[in-house]
Amino acid sequence: MRQSTAPFARRLAESAESLEPVLAGLVDRLEDASPADGAPPRLLAAMRHALLGGGKRFRPFLLMETVRLFGAAPDAALMAAAAVECLHTYSLVHDDLPAMDDDAVRRGRQTVHVAFDEATAILAGDALLTLAFDILSRRQTHPDAAVRSELVAVLARAAGAGGMVGGQMLDLASEGRALGEEEVRRLEGMKTGALIAAACEMGAVLAGAGPAERAAIRSYGRRLGLAFQIADDLLDVEGVAPELGKATAKDAARGKATLVQLMGVKRARAVLTETVARCEAALARFGPAAEDLAEAARFVAERRR
Amino acid sequence: MRQSTAPFARRLAESAESLEPVLAGLVDRLEDASPADGAPPRLLAAMRHALLGGGKRFRPFLLMETVRLFGAAPDAALMAAAAVECLHTYSLVHDDLPAMDDDAVRRGRQTVHVAFDEATAILAGDALLTLAFDILSRRQTHPDAAVRSELVAVLARAAGAGGMVGGQMLDLASEGRALGEEEVRRLEGMKTGALIAAACEMGAVLAGAGPAERAAIRSYGRRLGLAFQIADDLLDVEGVAPELGKATAKDAARGKATLVQLMGVKRARAVLTETVARCEAALARFGPAAEDLAEAARFVAERRR
Repeated sequence: MRQSTAPFARRLAESAESLEPVLAGLVDRLEDASPADGAPPRLLAAMRHALLGGGKRFRPFLLMETVRLFGAAPDAALMAAAAVECLHTYSLVHDDLPAMDDDAVRRGRQTVHVAFDEATAILAGDALLTLAFDILSRRQTHPDAAVRSELVAVLARAAGAGGMVGGQMLDLASEGRALGEEEVRRLEGMKTGALIAAACEMGAVLAGAGPAERAAIRSYGRRLGLAFQIADDLLDVEGVAPELGKATAKDAARGKATLVQLMGVKRARAVLTETVARCEAALARFGPAAEDLAEAARFVAERRR
Repeated sequence: MRQSTAPFARRLAESAESLEPVLAGLVDRLEDASPADGAPPRLLAAMRHALLGGGKRFRPFLLMETVRLFGAAPDAALMAAAAVECLHTYSLVHDDLPAMDDDAVRRGRQTVHVAFDEATAILAGDALLTLAFDILSRRQTHPDAAVRSELVAVLARAAGAGGMVGGQMLDLASEGRALGEEEVRRLEGMKTGALIAAACEMGAVLAGAGPAERAAIRSYGRRLGLAFQIADDLLDVEGVAPELGKATAKDAARGKATLVQLMGVKRARAVLTETVARCEAALARFGPAAEDLAEAARFVAERRR
């Protein structure tokens, strides 16, 4: 291990800080965007509330670290990273809606439909989702249109009916039903894993990685998504609400099956360790250059909030 | 005038028919899409309910007619046309939600949240919006990635916070407030005009039109959007519900200001006639080749449902 967890957490925080002005600038620019005279102030306020409210910016970090793995400057990936964060944020805004998970608190703050209203939250989510693709289509994201188009393809497939949106649909349908471990793995792979894997793959696309390297990164990303989800479920069981900034043990209260419930805490911890090892194995071909991404997997498994 | 309105209506219907199997095929393919094993059946059913429920497919028609204007085969534009229809359909599904316009009937059928449920309608809308960009990123849409990326740019900007979503936000905020004519024009230009103009502009992009030609088409599209909205408002005042397939005079009942209310029916009809003339003027540089698009503007102004 090259670094301890402490410096890694610092690098993650620094990466999040570098993204913040990019995200803020993207929303600011909508104030005088064509084709109209600018977006309505209340809509922009809701988008800012959701997007600039903190968060670890873990998906952007993964994208930028993957770019670094292939020898490019992570800063060149800031726009694509911002697009992924816009997409992730839209999914949180819509998932929190009364008709969905009905959450009032997110990242220690009121959710958008509580701070504003339901219609505004739906529209802010729609606008953030649309903004993600707007960003990816800009020359600033990458000078090569083939790269930009491929970024759109990877993100749209991961986010759509066969990925994240489909996973949320399965999740809602699972309330009060007894799912098996395989079903929950599929559900969580779609709901959470697909976007995490896409963030990694988009980094490989941006950096011009070859097909074999891209496949290895995708494989790492999928396993990382599973590790992320198990760690999240463990936090849901063991976490403390004020530290986490959201309600805990709520999945159980809703009758939602999590992997940890199905496996038990002990086996879940064992699967988590094994999954981290698989993440490292997927990175083996890259040698020591991939140490940062390997550390990201260990960090995910060990995080306490 | 080369053709009467009757053959035009038939061509519009034929264009809609040619699009139907493309739309159906796009949703079918999600059943075995990666990265997961396929989208959930209930989500796909809701997407089909919304997308395959009829409709004039006017935006796809405009896109394909613009492609024809520049000498390309309209069939080459079917994928891009399908993307625009997916995006338009998502906006209808979300606008109909209880938190928004709260409509139970659309195109003579139950709206998605009534036929399914609210969460499913939100997710089906999200999935259709995402699918629009997925489609535009495919080689099948256009072999040149620069064209695909530009299509994404045009659609995303028209659909986002500075366009369609922003217009819906302004529309919701206008209930019970007294807006001036300029405000309503801006609102409707964003809510409806932006996507109609984008459909035309995407046709120009697909066909490789030059900057001046593209600007002329965009100008035509914006004016057409205004004509469309005034005609729609007139139908809302004068229309008969069963024929229209949706509730009428509802805008007035909600205290929403329409251009027709602000102008009065007589002046609205005059502005509509003038706007159609401006559509024709924007097309003048193209000569007789643009007769189909000019006829589309006249058709919009004269439609009775």
